[in-house]
Amino acid sequence: MVDVHVSDLVVTDTQLISLPKIVGDNGALIVAELGAGLPFVVRRIFTLLDIPRDEARGTHAHRQCEQFLICMKGSVTAVIDDGTHRQEIVLDSPTVGLYMPRLTWGTQLNYSSDALLLVLASDPYDADDYIHDYGEFRALKSRS
Amino acid sequence: MVDVHVSDLVVTDTQLISLPKIVGDNGALIVAELGAGLPFVVRRIFTLLDIPRDEARGTHAHRQCEQFLICMKGSVTAVIDDGTHRQEIVLDSPTVGLYMPRLTWGTQLNYSSDALLLVLASDPYDADDYIHDYGEFRALKSRS
Repeated sequence: MVDVHVSDLVVTDTQLISLPKIVGDNGALIVAELGAGLPFVVRRIFTLLDIPRDEARGTHAHRQCEQFLICMKGSVTAVIDDGTHRQEIVLDSPTVGLYMPRLTWGTQLNYSSDALLLVLASDPYDADDYIHDYGEFRALKSRS
Repeated sequence: MVDVHVSDLVVTDTQLISLPKIVGDNGALIVAELGAGLPFVVRRIFTLLDIPRDEARGTHAHRQCEQFLICMKGSVTAVIDDGTHRQEIVLDSPTVGLYMPRLTWGTQLNYSSDALLLVLASDPYDADDYIHDYGEFRALKSRS
């Protein structure tokens, strides 16, 4: 089994997961699998690119969907918030994944011009799963 | 539901899947989800990078594991083979995914120096799932 380093963050139940990079003469391989780096079964992926530097993406939470963010190229700042604690994480390596459990308020900003952000999600798209109002999010979070 | 274009290839049951890219003033989003672009539930991912140009990766088949290859950056040539038909596909866009069902012999070569190949897999790593002998692969395939 490959060695995966997991750091708990200040924001409840979020984690920064270091994905092992295996480097050889014939190139490099970064791996993540269920139980060793990949925090859930993936049913949806999306890739963000060509995001203007002054643009903020996200700015919502999910009722059920879990997400795992990997910056494949360039850099992006992920802001995570559990309604009480807020933390900024710079993602700038494909060897690092940010795990956001359900009911985490997330915003991504400061995309570098070459940034390529891969988001792995536990659930297919469902408009009703999104919480766009921060007050509603805090109320839900305080009851969870 | 987003529009996903699927092309059947010559090699049995392989597919080239065009993933929708949604472009707006605030950047671009490429999406794939189960039933709309993503051909299976993902339990393992791996990323290949810094692969020397003259290196060939893969050169094996899987007994059960399905794979979905997306070239996030640069370009790579994927050779797919069902024991009877062989086809070369150049992957050079994050909007295209190559679906390889179980029992597909696959090799990837001609990596550009900046290539970043994302492989989504249906199963966790299992050494016994790999078939490294082409003759054994053909024999298994002919009985499947």
